[in-house]
Amino acid sequence: MGLDSRVEDMKEELLLELNEFLRMPSVSAREDGSGAFRGCAEWVRSKLEEAGAEARLMETDGHPVVYAEIGSGSRTLLSYGHYDVQPPEPLELWESDPFEPEVRDGSLFARGVADDKGDVLARIQALRLYIEEHGPLPFKLKFFIEGEEEIGSPNLAPFVRENGPLLAADACLWEGSMKDEAGRPMIFCGTKGLAYVELRARGASHDLHSMYGGIAPNPAWRLIQALRTIKDENGEITLDGLDALADEPSEKDLEAISRIPFDDGALRASWGVQALDRGLTGEEALREMLLRPTANIAGIQSGYTGPGSKTIVPSEAFVKMDFRLVSGQSPGPVVELIRAHLRRRGFEDVEVVDLHGVEAAKTPVDSPVVQTALETWRELGREDAVVFPTIGGSGPTSLFATELGIPTIMTGNVANAESRIHSPNESIRLEDYFEAVSYFASFFGRFAS
Amino acid sequence: MGLDSRVEDMKEELLLELNEFLRMPSVSAREDGSGAFRGCAEWVRSKLEEAGAEARLMETDGHPVVYAEIGSGSRTLLSYGHYDVQPPEPLELWESDPFEPEVRDGSLFARGVADDKGDVLARIQALRLYIEEHGPLPFKLKFFIEGEEEIGSPNLAPFVRENGPLLAADACLWEGSMKDEAGRPMIFCGTKGLAYVELRARGASHDLHSMYGGIAPNPAWRLIQALRTIKDENGEITLDGLDALADEPSEKDLEAISRIPFDDGALRASWGVQALDRGLTGEEALREMLLRPTANIAGIQSGYTGPGSKTIVPSEAFVKMDFRLVSGQSPGPVVELIRAHLRRRGFEDVEVVDLHGVEAAKTPVDSPVVQTALETWRELGREDAVVFPTIGGSGPTSLFATELGIPTIMTGNVANAESRIHSPNESIRLEDYFEAVSYFASFFGRFAS
Repeated sequence: MGLDSRVEDMKEELLLELNEFLRMPSVSAREDGSGAFRGCAEWVRSKLEEAGAEARLMETDGHPVVYAEIGSGSRTLLSYGHYDVQPPEPLELWESDPFEPEVRDGSLFARGVADDKGDVLARIQALRLYIEEHGPLPFKLKFFIEGEEEIGSPNLAPFVRENGPLLAADACLWEGSMKDEAGRPMIFCGTKGLAYVELRARGASHDLHSMYGGIAPNPAWRLIQALRTIKDENGEITLDGLDALADEPSEKDLEAISRIPFDDGALRASWGVQALDRGLTGEEALREMLLRPTANIAGIQSGYTGPGSKTIVPSEAFVKMDFRLVSGQSPGPVVELIRAHLRRRGFEDVEVVDLHGVEAAKTPVDSPVVQTALETWRELGREDAVVFPTIGGSGPTSLFATELGIPTIMTGNVANAESRIHSPNESIRLEDYFEAVSYFASFFGRFAS
Repeated sequence: MGLDSRVEDMKEELLLELNEFLRMPSVSAREDGSGAFRGCAEWVRSKLEEAGAEARLMETDGHPVVYAEIGSGSRTLLSYGHYDVQPPEPLELWESDPFEPEVRDGSLFARGVADDKGDVLARIQALRLYIEEHGPLPFKLKFFIEGEEEIGSPNLAPFVRENGPLLAADACLWEGSMKDEAGRPMIFCGTKGLAYVELRARGASHDLHSMYGGIAPNPAWRLIQALRTIKDENGEITLDGLDALADEPSEKDLEAISRIPFDDGALRASWGVQALDRGLTGEEALREMLLRPTANIAGIQSGYTGPGSKTIVPSEAFVKMDFRLVSGQSPGPVVELIRAHLRRRGFEDVEVVDLHGVEAAKTPVDSPVVQTALETWRELGREDAVVFPTIGGSGPTSLFATELGIPTIMTGNVANAESRIHSPNESIRLEDYFEAVSYFASFFGRFAS
């Protein structure tokens, strides 16, 4: 009867199953005394078993991983996703209960529907439909579905390192793709790295009366003096040696970027700003986002920040900075480079605390799996799918793409540019969901060949 | 019998009276539904009446002023003080009840004992002792004791402007002097001005994912770019036109400063720092504090400042800055100058909010009242009293010194360098208290002649 019409006929059933998944409040940031969290993992396992896979829970030091295998053949595809969700707070901003899915104007609203439960279930349903239509899967499909993505995947690296052979594959479909503002499917071939540091400066042992403002060391000013060596007055990054670490982008990456439709006007409008940073526009802005590191201030604080005026010289100041990194710029060496940069300029007193690091990872834009992703979109009549050499954000894809050497991409996801991932009123469009089920089923058909 | 021996004989009685005053929790920052606050004002009035003065409460839009007059003669002395106190919090840091005075190691601990109840009562007791010893006061003494000093004297300016003739005097004794670290009496002849502003920068309409850190306007960085035009990389103020506004210090001021003993080592030790700002030492630091404006950061905040790492581009940033000003640098024009400075450099988008302004004020160091203050200290055997052209802090003295044209100084106070004014365990040394009573009585004797 054909996969598309099969999906068409089963819409109601597919949606009921998704709603069941969305009603489980699998918030990984909360302590799970109730067993409800494990119940969600068990539910995912049972869905994989219903589809014919051999599925099991694998323990970690935190929430369990759902692992499953199905099919046989010379090729292996790994699917990465997660069944945990972000906390729903602030609850008062939700228009409907975050754990009672509701359809409004053709969109489905619930916590986790876009990130990542819709994606997870669409792949499982696609598997089931594929088998119903075509019979046994002619390649090996592995599911790795973790329960700690929303708390930074603390147990992912040791798990992957201990279970390398189990996870081995020819390609990996990562979570996290989406459609852009114009509805075009986006295929991402990499993630940027991240070095998250806190710079801390100290002054007197206690806040001082600001009558001493001209002679007391002021840690807020001290921090600003340090920061002015990290960016120049035009906003360009001036951190010693950062550029030298970066791998050159490939010709193919540059070519892919030149083909990405990028509407900086729409972006500015959605942000409510007159101009982008440093007046960047068009492809220049896009290249900046995808090919260059950042030195972002995510937070800064010192002294009195309440209403009105309090006259003190603060005793402490700190700034939280995230450096998004490109291939070649590993977070460890980048933190050392920040320390050396500041030391060289006499800021030995400014402490650099290493809070979090993630490696950049890239799969070549002309990899076979990228071609499969593109061809699958074309098969669905989507000639407009766009290939990005990397996404601007970061994630632990390097564990798979670099450490296990598996070409890893993001494609076929259910989310769109207005999905409000991590925010109140998270949603997906129902049409995108059903298209994703068709997409993954078609992808499975192509992957074998 | 002599004033000194009179004080010596009455110590116990003087102290009992002070304790009675200190037990009244006249915290002006709290709403006064109970009438207890007015009770404190009434108590002060009654003490002035007991000393023979004509005293009354004068209403303001807030807490009442206690006003009193006594004596007659060709000269008039005005005494400024306040009967309100700072909130005692945090209570857990007090070693004894802030409103149950306790003597430990020769010091008296209670909220307000150093600022300003000890000072207020020492002057009233001195008046009483003077009359007991010498008979009627041969000059007119006016007491102006307000109840809102600790909340910024919101009703002082209109009161002074409406009651100029009532307050007219040949000299004014302000509150707020103290003994320095080595126990030397300090005489202050002025206060610095203050311009307190908040600089605000805005980015997108909401916090953004920091994957956009390279292309989204970041208001924290924007603020830092603005701040780097206000101080150079050596920490020198580079605000256009600020220096040009300043009056030149007089030769006599410079001479007075050269005579001030200043131990920057002791200051550094008390602050727990290796060096003062910009490596300033000795008289250079002292001149910086007394003769130069400041551009202090009292607080700064933007974005995420909780524990760990959150990756956002903040949507807002602000910095609170207090500029301590010298004569000639009026706060209004200084705020305009900050605005023009930023506008000239393309920071029209950085909002400058004027939060609070105070005028600098100075009485010449060779004024007769300063000579009287010095001679009184010498009479008590204190050859080491030190004259400061100004204090580093600010206060509304310009209302009296400039607007009413009354030479205004701070001398004879009961506090010392460890008095912890505004902090838990506020205290004075008992010997300083009794010396202050003698000091003011002697001062009254000299002032008439």
